[in-house]
Amino acid sequence: MTLASVDLGGTNIGIAIGTAAGQIVARDQIRTQGSLGPAHVLGRIAASVKRLAPTGVDALGLGVPGLCDIRNGTTLFLPNLATQWRGVAVSSMLENELGCPVYLLNDARMATLGELDYGYGRQVKDFVFLTLGTGIGGGVVLDGRLRTIGGEIGHQTIEPDGPLCGCGSRGCLEALASATALNAEGVRLIRMGQAPDLNDRAGGDLNLVTTELMSSCSDEAVGRAIERVGRYIGIGAANLVTVLHPQMVVLAGGLAQMGDLLTGPIRVELRRRVKMFPVDGVRVEVSLTGHRAGILGGLALARRKGVI
Amino acid sequence: MTLASVDLGGTNIGIAIGTAAGQIVARDQIRTQGSLGPAHVLGRIAASVKRLAPTGVDALGLGVPGLCDIRNGTTLFLPNLATQWRGVAVSSMLENELGCPVYLLNDARMATLGELDYGYGRQVKDFVFLTLGTGIGGGVVLDGRLRTIGGEIGHQTIEPDGPLCGCGSRGCLEALASATALNAEGVRLIRMGQAPDLNDRAGGDLNLVTTELMSSCSDEAVGRAIERVGRYIGIGAANLVTVLHPQMVVLAGGLAQMGDLLTGPIRVELRRRVKMFPVDGVRVEVSLTGHRAGILGGLALARRKGVI
Repeated sequence: MTLASVDLGGTNIGIAIGTAAGQIVARDQIRTQGSLGPAHVLGRIAASVKRLAPTGVDALGLGVPGLCDIRNGTTLFLPNLATQWRGVAVSSMLENELGCPVYLLNDARMATLGELDYGYGRQVKDFVFLTLGTGIGGGVVLDGRLRTIGGEIGHQTIEPDGPLCGCGSRGCLEALASATALNAEGVRLIRMGQAPDLNDRAGGDLNLVTTELMSSCSDEAVGRAIERVGRYIGIGAANLVTVLHPQMVVLAGGLAQMGDLLTGPIRVELRRRVKMFPVDGVRVEVSLTGHRAGILGGLALARRKGVI
Repeated sequence: MTLASVDLGGTNIGIAIGTAAGQIVARDQIRTQGSLGPAHVLGRIAASVKRLAPTGVDALGLGVPGLCDIRNGTTLFLPNLATQWRGVAVSSMLENELGCPVYLLNDARMATLGELDYGYGRQVKDFVFLTLGTGIGGGVVLDGRLRTIGGEIGHQTIEPDGPLCGCGSRGCLEALASATALNAEGVRLIRMGQAPDLNDRAGGDLNLVTTELMSSCSDEAVGRAIERVGRYIGIGAANLVTVLHPQMVVLAGGLAQMGDLLTGPIRVELRRRVKMFPVDGVRVEVSLTGHRAGILGGLALARRKGVI
């Protein structure tokens, strides 16, 4: 069975051809160019799939950055794409081009599905999945099943009067602990003269400050900023553990690459805040599927014929 | 089928005999007297059940205030009972006395089961249930199934550096918005001269301040305190809705009797904080089973033979 997976982002689109076992045999990445509208974007996705798999594919799984109706394959609201894609019948448009069924899912939930079928989901039946990147997305797997609605872990309120979030609320985990927030704190610390090593590594150019540079620099203030982000993520994780008691908290996305710098403070906060039952059995781990979670999730979605 | 239900609390024990349809035919209430130890308490429970149903019962559902192992019917940790009941084989002890199977469940989850089988669970398949009383307990029902672990909704962190909670963490919803917290705020407002009507209604005796008196008094400051509690509950509810997207938030316990005084601010906070998907479809309702949720949950547990 030849399957296709597409991860539609605001900037780039990842496209892959793979097997039901999760082996990726061909990959492509194209610019989204959302301003050209859905028909244009979908046409280029179809062209890329045809180029990668000239003999055709049996099914395609597509992750979209926002709300969609998975039953009829229609996008409802994709805030990061220029025209917002309200009521676009994405599945049927791509099905007409490709001649195979196309299944839709929110991108963070699709990544969670990748971890479920090809990562830690093979070991545990209950886990929460956090994608720590520009934003914070996530998904919830209970009794071996991905919950397809909700899952907006990054938009839990952590500080009721905290900073404005991109979603319009205040003090969301995403506003406090995304790569965007951490990066901005790095810039602030440089401007305040508290991060000379970070400034050197960025060559004195604030545009070049990244969370990767932050995790490798020697500035004490930067280390404390990373720890603080870990604590915030730990509070969010503790809330989920308190309510859902999963076996595992799985971290993915760019920030997850920080490893112990992040999992350490998260574990501290879990022990500090989950007091109603023993929390030692709840593991905090970096995703097994890593940056491939989304693409693998698309293969899983195609293999499952949209049945989650 | 004759079923028995027991709701074991730190102060009182509620006991009922009823039918599988949830009709209660006899009730009793006895003092817990936890300091006398498990054997004594369980002996008096058995005696009460025998008195209420002299011809015997087919099964008994028992709710306990803390952690238990529902598979083997053993309590693990009941913090509000003098001896803490660590590793007490409650089910087998009662089974020996009563000659019928005895099923154990945490009390807040048992109340949620009551609402699932005899309340709003007949209308919706996904809901979160909050018991707003001395503490804040709860339960989560997804796809028509009660989650038997986790569910400690009252111990989500709402204010990371907030007041110490009874559980040992800080800023839990329970520490900010339980009847205990609201009551203490009423006392504080009286002492500060901000609640003359409440003071009159309590006859000048701070021991007599209750949340019932607070909800019926005319002091503006007391009204704002109730609204604030509603806002905190709304933040906790918003976090659950953001992650789980249930169809309904169901309120039970003493504070739920305040009705609109509480549901109003909760709905405001839901609209303010859940921005990732439309929240208009998520209802906030006062429990249909009310103060009987726990006892009905025990009947449900007995009827289900412990299968949840």
